[in-house]
Amino acid sequence: MRAVVLEKSGLVFRTDYPEPTLCEGEVLVRVLRAGICETDLQLIRGYLGFRGVLGHEFVGVAETGRWKGRRVVCEINCSCHRCSTCQSGLPNHCPNRTVLGIVNRDGCFADLVAVPERNLHAVPEEVSTDEAVFAEPLAAAFEILAQVSFHPKDRVVVLGDGRLGHLCAQVLKQTGADVLVVGKHAEKLKLLEQEAIATGLADQLSPSRVADLVVDCTGSPSGLEQGLKWLKPRGTLVLKTTLAASHTLSLAPVVIDEITIVGSRCGPFRPALDALAEKRVNVRPLISAVLPLEQALEAFQHAQSSTALKVLLAVDE
Amino acid sequence: MRAVVLEKSGLVFRTDYPEPTLCEGEVLVRVLRAGICETDLQLIRGYLGFRGVLGHEFVGVAETGRWKGRRVVCEINCSCHRCSTCQSGLPNHCPNRTVLGIVNRDGCFADLVAVPERNLHAVPEEVSTDEAVFAEPLAAAFEILAQVSFHPKDRVVVLGDGRLGHLCAQVLKQTGADVLVVGKHAEKLKLLEQEAIATGLADQLSPSRVADLVVDCTGSPSGLEQGLKWLKPRGTLVLKTTLAASHTLSLAPVVIDEITIVGSRCGPFRPALDALAEKRVNVRPLISAVLPLEQALEAFQHAQSSTALKVLLAVDE
Repeated sequence: MRAVVLEKSGLVFRTDYPEPTLCEGEVLVRVLRAGICETDLQLIRGYLGFRGVLGHEFVGVAETGRWKGRRVVCEINCSCHRCSTCQSGLPNHCPNRTVLGIVNRDGCFADLVAVPERNLHAVPEEVSTDEAVFAEPLAAAFEILAQVSFHPKDRVVVLGDGRLGHLCAQVLKQTGADVLVVGKHAEKLKLLEQEAIATGLADQLSPSRVADLVVDCTGSPSGLEQGLKWLKPRGTLVLKTTLAASHTLSLAPVVIDEITIVGSRCGPFRPALDALAEKRVNVRPLISAVLPLEQALEAFQHAQSSTALKVLLAVDE
Repeated sequence: MRAVVLEKSGLVFRTDYPEPTLCEGEVLVRVLRAGICETDLQLIRGYLGFRGVLGHEFVGVAETGRWKGRRVVCEINCSCHRCSTCQSGLPNHCPNRTVLGIVNRDGCFADLVAVPERNLHAVPEEVSTDEAVFAEPLAAAFEILAQVSFHPKDRVVVLGDGRLGHLCAQVLKQTGADVLVVGKHAEKLKLLEQEAIATGLADQLSPSRVADLVVDCTGSPSGLEQGLKWLKPRGTLVLKTTLAASHTLSLAPVVIDEITIVGSRCGPFRPALDALAEKRVNVRPLISAVLPLEQALEAFQHAQSSTALKVLLAVDE
């Protein structure tokens, strides 16, 4: 089958990749659309040392199992459901887990992918195939609401105008909070303004300590330090940025101002699919390009450009 | 008057320091005992660039005001009580604040100190003068209970067997939590075992991910990274360490394991004084030495040795 594979030599498009074999509890899914995520770009740069088929954001049609013939999206953490972490209700943190296209498991930039059946969610009719690709990153945005409590009057600053920054801003805006997105790209910020979200260019705004909550979606080591400049004392900074590299910072302001930093990763699919079905979140403007799987390497080039938001791979075309 | 002053040239003992003059709302306190804190040691190394009379942990006798003639302890943050931060109930985070012996205000390593009257708390009769010096650092330990909620069954690891580690461990133990203190000094850990608190030597224990809560009292840049090795996914790390220097670390584990980091500083005096009065916290074994103010420089030398816990200055002798 066709697959986009991260090998020692780098990212390659192959037509001879073996079709997946199913383990117990797994089903086969034929991929329709997949999305390139910041994590994919980090993996190519060496993050986590992944080798295999890349990709973890996708919508496909189940070829086997109870969802056979239906459009499905898939949670990416494949957990053992037996260890104490799973039993305590945190399967996404299972120490034995594999993660689709990220840790010890082939991903979705391929014709077929094998996934645990229990990880699948049927896609509502109201959600288009292109939109459904956003279920996974949108779930990551909803994770913030599951982790942090805040008031409708709270002031929120989202740092970063990329893919995840857009989704987080839209999700947070729904709570009634006063949301400001600070980014570096006027064109990307314009899309947020069309959703009635306030924006500012990073080099034109000087941070002031007005925010109760800051969400770092910069994908940059400087995000945390920038965030601390926006936060009120006792404020909360949600860290969405995962980075391969270590970086240097002083944590003294975190202690002095009694800041809370909350690491935030994967989230619940159900509210994400509901928000897409009810058109409460608008993801269509975020699609910068749709390319066929054969052009995956070009698609990756495009996804790395500063002007791109979400680049999709049309695997079924 | 006599005073221990941090000058550009370093720490000096002076006998010619001018007596404090009172501003509105301030009272004069004659110092009885004062304690040397890790922050004092950091200030000497350049943290925050402080110049003036050092010292912020003390008990004294009020010479003026409503507590005249009574033994008092003093909250260290001297706030404006007018700004929006103060009005929102966070005077300890007032952006206009001075901080006793730390930021723009002379401290307590002197015969007399001027402090806002509202910052004072009368010392209960049951609390000895030596014990009362611990009100301030013990309040900082109680701050953890004000910031973090946890269950009696939770497993807590305190990193660091120094002054603050001891106080935090005793306070956390009271909640019913299972507390382990990991330190580098067998002699110091022995004191904790006498309080029925489990301990381990850092170089003999390999961290395992068993803790719901880790409190970093190491005073070292490595505390955070060590703490992450003890925490369960979704666990909480309370950061008590303030450091002058930046340091290099990767925050990826914080995001992947969805860890919460809570900066924690000064705390409530009332529960600290209550705990001392009711003998629920035993601070006497922590007193390594009591030296007269004239020997302050020796006292500082002693406080920096790896074997010392709390070194007190007997200012009234």
